[in-house]
Amino acid sequence: MVRLQRQMGFLLELDKLKTVFRRNYLADGSRTENDAEHSWYFAVAALLFAEHAAEPVDLGRVMRMALVHDVVEIDAGDTFIYDEAAKQGQAERERRAAERLFGLLPEDQARDFLTLWHEFEAGATPESRYARAIDRVVAVILNHASSGKAWQEHRVPKRRILAINERIADGSPALWTYVHELVEDAARRGFVAD
Amino acid sequence: MVRLQRQMGFLLELDKLKTVFRRNYLADGSRTENDAEHSWYFAVAALLFAEHAAEPVDLGRVMRMALVHDVVEIDAGDTFIYDEAAKQGQAERERRAAERLFGLLPEDQARDFLTLWHEFEAGATPESRYARAIDRVVAVILNHASSGKAWQEHRVPKRRILAINERIADGSPALWTYVHELVEDAARRGFVAD
Repeated sequence: MVRLQRQMGFLLELDKLKTVFRRNYLADGSRTENDAEHSWYFAVAALLFAEHAAEPVDLGRVMRMALVHDVVEIDAGDTFIYDEAAKQGQAERERRAAERLFGLLPEDQARDFLTLWHEFEAGATPESRYARAIDRVVAVILNHASSGKAWQEHRVPKRRILAINERIADGSPALWTYVHELVEDAARRGFVAD
Repeated sequence: MVRLQRQMGFLLELDKLKTVFRRNYLADGSRTENDAEHSWYFAVAALLFAEHAAEPVDLGRVMRMALVHDVVEIDAGDTFIYDEAAKQGQAERERRAAERLFGLLPEDQARDFLTLWHEFEAGATPESRYARAIDRVVAVILNHASSGKAWQEHRVPKRRILAINERIADGSPALWTYVHELVEDAARRGFVAD
């Protein structure tokens, strides 16, 4: 059946997300994390912290966003959140990637996945605000746990970390309070430049 | 706040799932897959194939099962589905692991996660039957795509693959038809012994 064949083709293509690497390390600092691992970690954190969302959210929708939010990086690659130069052209690269990748699906599913991805990117709904907060939270937690290894390698000072991550408060004030304290702790320990 | 501290402690412990390796390879055969990647792949496949479930399912619950179903392997290790010897003691190892790991959480969440994991293991609800089917489907798809590399390494013949996987039909007859054909194709191509 053609429909199932297209879904299987998309799933096989998604396997490549396991080979797209991020800048941040695993908690033990042994190696960097890939996008598939990150997507799982993000989804499970969204489940775990649901009670801390700023507004009531449809958790099923948040988990779906987590599962597909980085799929575009199969074509567009990972863009480090602190790298302003790399952010040039990122939106256009990712838009083309979304069209090609979700375009592998049957038309109705392609539309659903694309809508979900656009909603996540825009961050204008309670679900996407919470999801975008969790996406940042899990990165800070691993950066802190790995003694700021990625922050040091890319020379990211404390003020940049705080400026980029303060939007966590839009999705979860409680998690932002926690993360803010983690970043201060990282500075006190010398994991990041003040 | 103590509650959030416990949730964070659990999340950091979960990071270890990224270092628990399965027997099956990525589609390109370059390396074996880890449990975190597998959990993401399983969750996204559950989302993708929802229309093929044998019965109506609460997809949010299925995705939650996918996200936590392998957490016990942080302590208990991965047990290859075709390894009968390794299956001895698996249930007891995993039961103890679930108690320790979910026990890191606040009591109400520990109970919820444990209930979810037991439901998945028992396979007695529409959600867990579908989830267990998808868990097997994604493994067969990657084994086929990687030219049966893991099947060959562990000398798993076609009849064993079919016997272990025919329960996919309980969760999704359509996916079982597809997977059955993939296994026959693998045999025709010489990826598995007949």
